[in-house]
Amino acid sequence: MISQSALRELARIVGPDHLVTDRTALGEYGTDGTKLAFPPDAAAFPRDAEQISRILRVANREGFPVIPRGAGSGMSGGALPVRGGLVLGLRRLDRILEIDRENLVAKVEPGVITADLQEAAEQVGLFYPPDPASIHISTIGGNVAECAGGLRAVKYGVTKDYVLGLTVVLPTGKILKTGVETMKGVAGYDLTRLIVGSEGTLAVITRITLRLIPRPDAKETMLAFFRDVEEAVETVSSIIGAGVTPTALEFLDGLCLRCVKKEMGLRLPAGAGAMLLIEVDGTRRAVTDEAEKIRHVCLHRGALNFREASDPREAETLWEARRNVSPSLYRLRPHKTSEDVVVPRSLLPALARHLDGLARRFGLPIAAFGHAGDGNLHVNIMYDGDDPVERDKVDAVVRELFMEVIRLGGTISGEHGIGITKAPYLEMEIPEEGIRLMGRIKKAFDPNGILNPGKIFPPAGADPDQQGVQKRGERR
Amino acid sequence: MISQSALRELARIVGPDHLVTDRTALGEYGTDGTKLAFPPDAAAFPRDAEQISRILRVANREGFPVIPRGAGSGMSGGALPVRGGLVLGLRRLDRILEIDRENLVAKVEPGVITADLQEAAEQVGLFYPPDPASIHISTIGGNVAECAGGLRAVKYGVTKDYVLGLTVVLPTGKILKTGVETMKGVAGYDLTRLIVGSEGTLAVITRITLRLIPRPDAKETMLAFFRDVEEAVETVSSIIGAGVTPTALEFLDGLCLRCVKKEMGLRLPAGAGAMLLIEVDGTRRAVTDEAEKIRHVCLHRGALNFREASDPREAETLWEARRNVSPSLYRLRPHKTSEDVVVPRSLLPALARHLDGLARRFGLPIAAFGHAGDGNLHVNIMYDGDDPVERDKVDAVVRELFMEVIRLGGTISGEHGIGITKAPYLEMEIPEEGIRLMGRIKKAFDPNGILNPGKIFPPAGADPDQQGVQKRGERR
Repeated sequence: MISQSALRELARIVGPDHLVTDRTALGEYGTDGTKLAFPPDAAAFPRDAEQISRILRVANREGFPVIPRGAGSGMSGGALPVRGGLVLGLRRLDRILEIDRENLVAKVEPGVITADLQEAAEQVGLFYPPDPASIHISTIGGNVAECAGGLRAVKYGVTKDYVLGLTVVLPTGKILKTGVETMKGVAGYDLTRLIVGSEGTLAVITRITLRLIPRPDAKETMLAFFRDVEEAVETVSSIIGAGVTPTALEFLDGLCLRCVKKEMGLRLPAGAGAMLLIEVDGTRRAVTDEAEKIRHVCLHRGALNFREASDPREAETLWEARRNVSPSLYRLRPHKTSEDVVVPRSLLPALARHLDGLARRFGLPIAAFGHAGDGNLHVNIMYDGDDPVERDKVDAVVRELFMEVIRLGGTISGEHGIGITKAPYLEMEIPEEGIRLMGRIKKAFDPNGILNPGKIFPPAGADPDQQGVQKRGERR
Repeated sequence: MISQSALRELARIVGPDHLVTDRTALGEYGTDGTKLAFPPDAAAFPRDAEQISRILRVANREGFPVIPRGAGSGMSGGALPVRGGLVLGLRRLDRILEIDRENLVAKVEPGVITADLQEAAEQVGLFYPPDPASIHISTIGGNVAECAGGLRAVKYGVTKDYVLGLTVVLPTGKILKTGVETMKGVAGYDLTRLIVGSEGTLAVITRITLRLIPRPDAKETMLAFFRDVEEAVETVSSIIGAGVTPTALEFLDGLCLRCVKKEMGLRLPAGAGAMLLIEVDGTRRAVTDEAEKIRHVCLHRGALNFREASDPREAETLWEARRNVSPSLYRLRPHKTSEDVVVPRSLLPALARHLDGLARRFGLPIAAFGHAGDGNLHVNIMYDGDDPVERDKVDAVVRELFMEVIRLGGTISGEHGIGITKAPYLEMEIPEEGIRLMGRIKKAFDPNGILNPGKIFPPAGADPDQQGVQKRGERR
């Protein structure tokens, strides 16, 4: 709860037009990509770091939670006000401040839509590689807070690999510049990398300095169909083993294929049970060389069919459709729980076999797609939430999946973060001492625990069943 | 001081043969690349994390400092026992545990010499890009602790860009695994990146999981001579501006050229005042294309002379000589203070003009070389330490240099770390609140402050003149 006097103070700070307290109007700020709902007490939309600093000082004095929010497209609940409090909307900090062609650096505010940043960079011959499927809706601030990955990570890495420096407001209200605006710098501890991926729990990001790279001259998209998942993922290892590093090396299983073939305009070859969608980029000649190597590997690995996109428009159609695989899966079942797991690339076949077994044993459709080049699969457990029998199977499937992923030397989150949906499982991956150390770091930033509480850290005495209720609320 | 009983306990932990207490024998463990000298009370050489854990528990109980040490080749004093205590030598943890060709991952112990790791990777067709000039003597553990850069950073980044996970012993003696063994992972705070570059103050690294990449098929080395420094560094910006990203883009000024031309087997064109040493790598055809672009830019920019190394042996001679520029500078003066500054690439000409002015005003030779592609120059102030007049000028030159670097939006350390030599200047770059936050993080790891005390953080009431005494002790 936020006191009336505090609300009046917040209105004075951001202006009455930028403070929302109306219950119905607040609804949209209480949900995100998980479709879970936790209504906040209020939502404020500050203009700059100065206003954010004043808001955080009020929050510390009054002791209410503050939850930073970008586009609200997160997949693990990082932006949800699980304990009420004030949603801190960053949509008004939406300027691309500078794109420095000479130094290959961009300075942006957190509310910029990632696709707009990519376009602005490409217009001047530069390239911002991180490419989460949500680029058209998610903000760069959210991408940094979650350390978003995406389709191009296999060659170009993830968001943290492009963040040089930040301006942040610490939970105490202090404004701090971290990192550098140069290509290198090792002065003091790497606060920048610590804040990237901290899911809005350590600081509010108000400015981001990003490294850009020259835009590649050429790119080429390829499609290869395989009989089954194992053949496809074994081919992924062979492509990397051949010394080629594609820009994107995406995998879709048979269920996903059937859901998106119309959008993709695909004619599936008889017996196709899996597909690889591959992009290479670079100089025109390097692209030709690498595409040839990839064709050779795919055919040698028994691809039923291999072809290159006939033109850039067809390629873009294929990639747009790939970005829409996730929602298209509702054709299988009305509800879904999506897990974002990573294993060492060479163990993808073992993971594929395990998913098969889970689907058979529990009798639920499990559709897998994702960034096979990184060993990162998005595993979608489809079910009917109105059928109590199906509903009750979901948590057991998730827990068995995570146990296998950990056993294979993997991680339970490749790029979606922990938020609240994975918090009860964090102890499966991170040793108790590590979680305790993270808790001490949190306290070093946020002594009163006002910034985005209830995220990442396992709920004291976490009850997976109670957590299950939340997970079963998911709609994407 | 370490009590006799504690020494007996340490001898029981590592074995008497692996504990050094003899004053003269301890000498070598009290110095490093800075040539400063701070004798420790003892030096222990544990075999594994278990022994290190037991040693740290003794240190916490008895309250003596523990200073982790690799090869002792650091340039900022990070391995110096400035407050005495126990040097923790990691040379016995020197195994390359695994090079995983399928997953492009290496697992190594910290005492492995970086060049040996590079060779082991290349023998199986893989590549570990970070390439500090010290690779033949420095250890991978030291590289990780300092976040070493090197000659290839302009294309491939620095050490932190290749560290996936760590096993560390926390100052309290707890053993902790951080990060992942997969290409991606965002579970919890990024402890791995926080420990990388923390200069041995947060944890003792006992195992490192590194990302490798496929070894490029081909490479090509080029040389271009210019009339003066400004022409050379402007050419650097033009090369990057042309959309080419060389593997290495190294700069040597006229003084450096005169010192190394014999090792390099160079015939300097008349009027040569600067040189660029450039490498490109990739597929054979990409290398040909990029070398041609670079030749064009250099000649267009007025290079006095441009040529490609005739064969791999000549190329290797050039790069080895480049690695030896630093010691060769003693031909100019018996003593040197070397600073490792970075500015935005486009401001290198401004920095070059400033160095000219400093050399003229103070009447000291200032030799600059380094990673121009990153905007990272190693600025060497040469002087005669036995001449009190020259000696007293050095600190003033350093302070003016740092002021200008900060004014240009740069950093006072690109890759050598802060250690003790730059600690008194840290406040010039990092705001007080940032240093305080780093102090709280240090405390979250090391409540009793026993691990590598007196590093990074500005000495309370730092006295630059007193610091100067240390700097003037430098011999490299």
